[in-house]
Amino acid sequence: MIQSLQNTKVKEWKKLTTKKGRDKSGLFLVEGWHLTEEAIKADAVIEAIIKEGVELPSYMDAVEVHFVTEEISLALAETEHTQGVFAVCRQPEVQFESLQASNILMLDAIQDPGNIGTMIRTADAAGMDAVILGKGTADPYNAKVLRSAQGSHFHLPILKQDLFSSIEHCKESGIPVYGTSLQGAVTYKEAKAGEKFALIMGNEGAGVNNELLALTDQNLYIPIYGKSESLNVAIAAGILLYQLKGE
Amino acid sequence: MIQSLQNTKVKEWKKLTTKKGRDKSGLFLVEGWHLTEEAIKADAVIEAIIKEGVELPSYMDAVEVHFVTEEISLALAETEHTQGVFAVCRQPEVQFESLQASNILMLDAIQDPGNIGTMIRTADAAGMDAVILGKGTADPYNAKVLRSAQGSHFHLPILKQDLFSSIEHCKESGIPVYGTSLQGAVTYKEAKAGEKFALIMGNEGAGVNNELLALTDQNLYIPIYGKSESLNVAIAAGILLYQLKGE
Repeated sequence: MIQSLQNTKVKEWKKLTTKKGRDKSGLFLVEGWHLTEEAIKADAVIEAIIKEGVELPSYMDAVEVHFVTEEISLALAETEHTQGVFAVCRQPEVQFESLQASNILMLDAIQDPGNIGTMIRTADAAGMDAVILGKGTADPYNAKVLRSAQGSHFHLPILKQDLFSSIEHCKESGIPVYGTSLQGAVTYKEAKAGEKFALIMGNEGAGVNNELLALTDQNLYIPIYGKSESLNVAIAAGILLYQLKGE
Repeated sequence: MIQSLQNTKVKEWKKLTTKKGRDKSGLFLVEGWHLTEEAIKADAVIEAIIKEGVELPSYMDAVEVHFVTEEISLALAETEHTQGVFAVCRQPEVQFESLQASNILMLDAIQDPGNIGTMIRTADAAGMDAVILGKGTADPYNAKVLRSAQGSHFHLPILKQDLFSSIEHCKESGIPVYGTSLQGAVTYKEAKAGEKFALIMGNEGAGVNNELLALTDQNLYIPIYGKSESLNVAIAAGILLYQLKGE
């Protein structure tokens, strides 16, 4: 059992709680039984399982397990009541061009980790083939994003990639691209569901970048019937993805 | 300027950060410029405005303002970086029977304050006439619910009321009631949009109570096309409310 916070491995794991540490190593840390199990089920590349105490369910036999003290578990935890189990996973490196994706969600400068995680989960539920995170969107391997996505990180490819080149690639592949905007947009009910589509959701305050909106095939809006100023971006994504999916 | 944390008013306000204090007084506390302005705009019953420092925008002239120290402001704040402005508002007492509502969202034992707030905001956007919170649903005047709803508390009536009697009342008023369920349910696309409808969303883990589901006109489900186990309840509410609204 690892007992010291000064242990080299513990120090490396602790770095994964920062974006810098994740970017540098290409790894990320998931916390809790549910996410750890999802990682194993999905055959994710798991570098290590970290477990407080010395007991382990038998289905985890195949992976390298490091037993640690409660102190170390608490140092790694980002939830208030940690379950004391973690998996160190490798960030998959996926090229959009090699994916042959035909249903894509793109996120432009989304700030809130809960919104990003919920949109990854919703994209998964709606049967998307990929989620592309453009410039200015928070790190998808942030603990709060991982928690909100409830394991969907292991179900579909998540790419960090420039959205201009992504739109370009969609055009070349015959995938219609929909933006979301209040100006120069048509009501979302007019969007015809098709087998292929890409949808761009934008920043919580500013919306989708105007230069991106100029490149789309059509821009959509969701009418507001009451007095609220807007919908939460993840709610809007849910309504639009299911409308475009249309089955 | 009020300077002491022991001031009687300050002690009363502080109690509003707990459910017990809100229930006893029938008041609630909103924090930040946006929510305070929404309360004023909506002609909510405001018992007091609390403001750190001594300056105030002119449009707040008409209301009773208590200037307080930073220490008191921090004691009342439930956000990390408080804007130092608060409004003490009275919880409206509304009788469902007197509302003549025809579009209603009902929440059965929803636990997460962020989900409740987002659903109140979405119900507002979708033009609902009322949100009814049944037994076991967290307090709508909790600070996190208020923040997630972004002012929608002041746009439509929010009632705490038994859902069995609410369904009964809908039936008497010719309002079809839709439940949400995976069993004995039809896909949500089969729900015909109508002028009148009530929708019940259920607990994040357990869903809608089976006894309530037995009383509905129809139960709906949203298909999952990917590998996620479910949709977030607020996302599902958004998809369903806009489907039922149908315009």
